[in-house]
Amino acid sequence: MQQDNAITVNDVQAAKKRLSGIAHRTPVLTSTTVNQRTDSQVFFKCENFQRTGSFKFRGAYNALTQLSSLEKQRGVLAFSSGNHGQAIALSGKLLNIPTAIVMPNDAPFVKQTATRGYGAEVILYDRHTTNREELAQSLAGDRHLTLIPPYDHPHVVAGQGTAALELIAAVGQLDLILVCCGGGGLISGSAIATKALLPNCRVIGVEPELADDATRSFHSKTLQTVTNPNTIADGARTPSLGKITFPLVLNYVDDMVTVSEAAILRTMFLLWERLKIVVEPTGVLAAAALLEGVITAPGARIGVIISGGNVDLAEVGKLFAEDDR
Amino acid sequence: MQQDNAITVNDVQAAKKRLSGIAHRTPVLTSTTVNQRTDSQVFFKCENFQRTGSFKFRGAYNALTQLSSLEKQRGVLAFSSGNHGQAIALSGKLLNIPTAIVMPNDAPFVKQTATRGYGAEVILYDRHTTNREELAQSLAGDRHLTLIPPYDHPHVVAGQGTAALELIAAVGQLDLILVCCGGGGLISGSAIATKALLPNCRVIGVEPELADDATRSFHSKTLQTVTNPNTIADGARTPSLGKITFPLVLNYVDDMVTVSEAAILRTMFLLWERLKIVVEPTGVLAAAALLEGVITAPGARIGVIISGGNVDLAEVGKLFAEDDR
Repeated sequence: MQQDNAITVNDVQAAKKRLSGIAHRTPVLTSTTVNQRTDSQVFFKCENFQRTGSFKFRGAYNALTQLSSLEKQRGVLAFSSGNHGQAIALSGKLLNIPTAIVMPNDAPFVKQTATRGYGAEVILYDRHTTNREELAQSLAGDRHLTLIPPYDHPHVVAGQGTAALELIAAVGQLDLILVCCGGGGLISGSAIATKALLPNCRVIGVEPELADDATRSFHSKTLQTVTNPNTIADGARTPSLGKITFPLVLNYVDDMVTVSEAAILRTMFLLWERLKIVVEPTGVLAAAALLEGVITAPGARIGVIISGGNVDLAEVGKLFAEDDR
Repeated sequence: MQQDNAITVNDVQAAKKRLSGIAHRTPVLTSTTVNQRTDSQVFFKCENFQRTGSFKFRGAYNALTQLSSLEKQRGVLAFSSGNHGQAIALSGKLLNIPTAIVMPNDAPFVKQTATRGYGAEVILYDRHTTNREELAQSLAGDRHLTLIPPYDHPHVVAGQGTAALELIAAVGQLDLILVCCGGGGLISGSAIATKALLPNCRVIGVEPELADDATRSFHSKTLQTVTNPNTIADGARTPSLGKITFPLVLNYVDDMVTVSEAAILRTMFLLWERLKIVVEPTGVLAAAALLEGVITAPGARIGVIISGGNVDLAEVGKLFAEDDR
């Protein structure tokens, strides 16, 4: 498959250089409680502390730096459930590139506000009645903007892989890396980087049960889709893996698993309470697979990527308040 | 005043050595949003990531290591609104010293559970009908346990000062350090360390308006008290500064200010949302003084100590959910 060879660890290393001094080298946290509970050594790579609150900044900035002068001048367009939009908006601000962000009108309000706060134009649409790709492509054509997709782009994939690169640089040998999966950008890039540096380290992707398209695609080796899945993990509501990310996932990822909505909520609660970090529902997917026993690896050194921390606190507050732990 | 000279930066340095490799060297976080909003450079020393979730571990461990062999064998007793209890409990576990913790029966449930989780015996009392010091001293006498007070003890004060020592080591020159104030252990120790290393750095303490005893004590130079103040900042519900901490605050602290309950809640929300960290109400006091404009220092380099992150998420969830930001 030609695409598989199109992105290598060299691209991830090049992205790392572009991001140096721009993206945060996010902290790796550990927890005695988590280690005891899972009988393993767990290293949380905290991309919730990344600029704009998620790993998406890595891919967005890496992509925008590589546009032509004319493309930079005309500006870019992004369609996004939120985090990619914020990432493109800040990258544009830092690189002096105009940005317009298309997002569903039910995206968390905090994400809409933050995106506007970075100086981007925000264009809302109804995700139940409008095909966002068609809308975005039409807008891009009318305005001569360059469309930067949220995951299915080699520069985006390479940028996201720098998260795993940093994690491995910080903690050394790992037996397993767990990564959440929406459109597959983070897990593709992370798997490429991991397999190059630690060939024996397994890479496992985690999805919500309610949005298990990538898991089904992985096991059937045929691209599967979901439509507007009602998972709390809004970053994993993507309809399917992409043309670029699907073959990468097939080639570099060892397994794909799913977790329930209840598991996502319990894990959010645990990470907030014990690690004292604010993590969004999508951001806890990888941790949930481990803490809920979907994945067990006694004695192993395990990297877990916490992908982001952008939540509507009032909404999460309601969920936690309703709970009677 | 004799007590003023009883604790010096040498004691804080000695505590630092005892804590080395045991306490976490907690991260210092920055936020572009906070810097822009306050027109200054702000460095958050995140003791919410400290072991047991607050700075209290520093003083507790420093005190327990210095007990005699007989005292260690007999065990220790602590009275605490929660964080000091957890800190003593874990320190006892690490040093193989039996611990019994006396705490009010309305202390956050998460703190009671965590304290028991560290292997301590928890003794509950009603803070509206019982004087906790009398209860604790009676228990200590009956069982021959050594009472470790939560703040009014030179080894506790010296231990807490290591937080400021680490902050200054991490970021260098500071013009101002803001520290929350309950019984005065953290601010006394931090002020002693700061004035020794950065003589020109101002140290300002922050209390809730509803528990402003230390602020009144500081300005009147006469010890003032409060009784069961109804502030959300449970770590600042202490009745007054102590015999040791009051003169230290008078000698080493430059000013004391207060913040409203609304300011505390707004600041919690902001730190959770923007810094992605879980901070307890007492833990945001210092940040609130700055973010709410009680303290302004344009162009300054400002250290802010985030004292802890132990909250009942269901309770905070209700507060955030009720809010319609």
